[in-house]
Amino acid sequence: MAKDFSTREENYSKWYNDIVLRAGLAENSAVRGCMVIKPYGYAIWEKMQAALDKMFKDTGHVNAYFPLFIPKSFFSKEADHVEGFAKECAVVTHYRLKNAPDGSGVVVDEDAKLEEELVIRPTSETIIWDTYRQWVQSYRDLPILVNQWANVVRWEMRTRMFLRTAEFLWQEGHTAHATEQEALEETYKMLDVYADFAENFMAIPVLKGVKSENERFAGALETFCIEALMQDGKALQAGTSHFLGQNFAKAFDVKFASKEGTLEYVWATSWGVSTRLVGALIMAHSDDHGLVLPPKLAPIQTVIVPIYKNNDQYDLVCQKAREIKEMIEKRGVLVKLDDRDTHKPGWKFNEYEFKGVPLRIVIGPRDVEKGTVEIARRDTLEKQIVPIENLAQTVEQLLGDIQQNLFRRASEFRKNNTQTADTWAEFKDILDDKGGFIMAHWDGTAETEQKIKEETKATIRCIPLDDNKEEGRCVYSGNPSVRRVVFARAY
Amino acid sequence: MAKDFSTREENYSKWYNDIVLRAGLAENSAVRGCMVIKPYGYAIWEKMQAALDKMFKDTGHVNAYFPLFIPKSFFSKEADHVEGFAKECAVVTHYRLKNAPDGSGVVVDEDAKLEEELVIRPTSETIIWDTYRQWVQSYRDLPILVNQWANVVRWEMRTRMFLRTAEFLWQEGHTAHATEQEALEETYKMLDVYADFAENFMAIPVLKGVKSENERFAGALETFCIEALMQDGKALQAGTSHFLGQNFAKAFDVKFASKEGTLEYVWATSWGVSTRLVGALIMAHSDDHGLVLPPKLAPIQTVIVPIYKNNDQYDLVCQKAREIKEMIEKRGVLVKLDDRDTHKPGWKFNEYEFKGVPLRIVIGPRDVEKGTVEIARRDTLEKQIVPIENLAQTVEQLLGDIQQNLFRRASEFRKNNTQTADTWAEFKDILDDKGGFIMAHWDGTAETEQKIKEETKATIRCIPLDDNKEEGRCVYSGNPSVRRVVFARAY
Repeated sequence: MAKDFSTREENYSKWYNDIVLRAGLAENSAVRGCMVIKPYGYAIWEKMQAALDKMFKDTGHVNAYFPLFIPKSFFSKEADHVEGFAKECAVVTHYRLKNAPDGSGVVVDEDAKLEEELVIRPTSETIIWDTYRQWVQSYRDLPILVNQWANVVRWEMRTRMFLRTAEFLWQEGHTAHATEQEALEETYKMLDVYADFAENFMAIPVLKGVKSENERFAGALETFCIEALMQDGKALQAGTSHFLGQNFAKAFDVKFASKEGTLEYVWATSWGVSTRLVGALIMAHSDDHGLVLPPKLAPIQTVIVPIYKNNDQYDLVCQKAREIKEMIEKRGVLVKLDDRDTHKPGWKFNEYEFKGVPLRIVIGPRDVEKGTVEIARRDTLEKQIVPIENLAQTVEQLLGDIQQNLFRRASEFRKNNTQTADTWAEFKDILDDKGGFIMAHWDGTAETEQKIKEETKATIRCIPLDDNKEEGRCVYSGNPSVRRVVFARAY
Repeated sequence: MAKDFSTREENYSKWYNDIVLRAGLAENSAVRGCMVIKPYGYAIWEKMQAALDKMFKDTGHVNAYFPLFIPKSFFSKEADHVEGFAKECAVVTHYRLKNAPDGSGVVVDEDAKLEEELVIRPTSETIIWDTYRQWVQSYRDLPILVNQWANVVRWEMRTRMFLRTAEFLWQEGHTAHATEQEALEETYKMLDVYADFAENFMAIPVLKGVKSENERFAGALETFCIEALMQDGKALQAGTSHFLGQNFAKAFDVKFASKEGTLEYVWATSWGVSTRLVGALIMAHSDDHGLVLPPKLAPIQTVIVPIYKNNDQYDLVCQKAREIKEMIEKRGVLVKLDDRDTHKPGWKFNEYEFKGVPLRIVIGPRDVEKGTVEIARRDTLEKQIVPIENLAQTVEQLLGDIQQNLFRRASEFRKNNTQTADTWAEFKDILDDKGGFIMAHWDGTAETEQKIKEETKATIRCIPLDDNKEEGRCVYSGNPSVRRVVFARAY
């Protein structure tokens, strides 16, 4: 166990930061609020991208790329949208530097001022809907099912690696449809894709729901989301899918001739997930020994560490280790053999444990003799001796077990940290105690939501998309309510 | 053949633009100099990315991500570098918009001015070497073999889709090494990777060489490049690999403790290719019928078009077409069956021909009866009737043939358009006639190179990396020369 490393109990926030830094996932850069995603962290993001990209393509979407820059005037075209993003926009005003007259370096060349300032995209609805106007004339041009992998910038004041950074990487789907019904179906479909990804790849159970008006995306008619619970009892919004109605079509004048020959505005959706998911992954599963990764998103799924005392043993053991590696790789498992003689086995054990590698195989001279290896699971830290015969199968099975076990563990945690509150006192007690999801009645007004937030920092994470209607009284105002909603403090 | 479409003969530049637009590869956006990469164009880029990414990983590299923003002061740290890029930098000066007092929209909030302006990366050497300072202490931390897939911005005055745009997508490798020798080896290795990719995926023969001082990357000791020849006789630089020496290590103070215990500056390389390659691909192979794609980079490798006169025939033919599709897909070929009944076969023929789909399979009721299909090659426009039995094998073989034929054709073209010039009159005649690569003696001075450029617009594309030493006299100055170099007008 890493000694110079905070535990969750001691300091949850420092524990998170320590993992990000020491596992080599990311670090802060010289630019305020921007992080460097280091190779190991980026490899996790690449695995997420690959899985999501396949899911998008399997549901009929294609990728495209739109400009980084958005003319400032585009922003004003949708009133709610500009209201939501104007306060956190990085703005390009000039297009040239020149040598400072005093020789002190370079300065902005005031002669190279842009006629209209350009905003670095915080999200791309405006530039994309300006483009779609050219793409859509008739119902035959619809639907447009486009996704973009891109960087975006939101000038956040308080940043935190992966969870909230000024620049982040994400995907944003932007679809255009002939009917409201079809756009709504798309919105739900992509919410399901996100939930599927969260649960089956990230091993994190999520609640699907709709946002209250306060938490809605700027420009959307409805924002749907998946909400996950972190180990400190705080919620994390892991993905959103927006039903945009005809707002952007109206703002950018995107109309189509319907089958019936009428001219109609196009219906829109947008949906996105970001590198924030890496933060969720860390906080959902990791422990006081470091990162814990679900096998499906682990850049290294199994590491092999040879044990030896002299050169002869080294050769013998590494020879066998290479055979094992090849055998396991044939099954499509990502295996690393760390045969460096510059680092001791104990150092390697700590290193890969800290980096969350799901399985560790240790092999020494005695093992070679006996035809066995020691295999250790990162999730439970259990070790067992297993025969080399059928090892590939054992590994595959264990990886499957770990994937399931992490999901089971996270589901159990969520279950144990989801409580109902029927009085305001109960509500506050839960927050003061261990937090988690609170199922409580709400009177449906933005005022009550705002007051609850001010008094407790808890927000409505979502109104769940289930059928559990139950009449009651608002936990804060006592006014009537038709169903419980999900409250939590959130990232 | 598409009638409302320029031929190369009529107007080469318009022909290029027509292909980009009509094949649905890209279009200009509302933002000056920035293009929208449309789904079909982006799909080609994705195939390029996948192939290159695998080659990078196979040569030991990993991906990472560094900030979009570079503090202005970083730029001044390497003198040549700032000199090379300062004139085309997009600069962020503010981080907030606000409502205009007169209600006319949004304006830049002057209270939100950055203390230090941020430059949108035109390339990332500076921000990356500032980061590497933290990553390198000892020789054990080397080499660093990192690549980044990213967008960059260079504020070009004259832009052209794919070939030169203000924002473009690229990859940039940035490696750090303990010795000069190792860094040089890396520089050559990545040049070879690029040449391999250009020839074996893009089917474009390239010259490998080193740039003259005038054409060197700002901050490099040597710039190596691959140069391709386009159908209008102009050259296109398709990739560069830079040996940066210790320039950036010195500018950002990146030192390491060597095995011998001395403190040394780190040696560096950087290398990149961009979406410009899509432009090269278009211009190298396409013809007056539209785009021609090498099978290895075609998003659709084979299209199946059914022919029918009534519903019964439609069902019969489509049933067979689906069987064929499945059969071919099993071999890993990307097949599209266009069974839309909203478009006529003739329209579809034109469409896929224009989009450069390497193979077209046509099947009608007679074919189903006889167990045959018609298959047409995009490169030669030849058609033949082949049996459905073994069709998958036939398709695979034809795709291989097309890939080879395109490379052979482009090689032949280059051979026919590479000439030697021994006098200044010859040199100018070649340029006035058909252009192409001119092998000529040069006295090695920047002045001569500059004068030749001023008088003819031709530049030294590279000094080839072959052993063809041959003494002679400079074609311009008459001064002695040790070898011929490659001149051409270039994109």
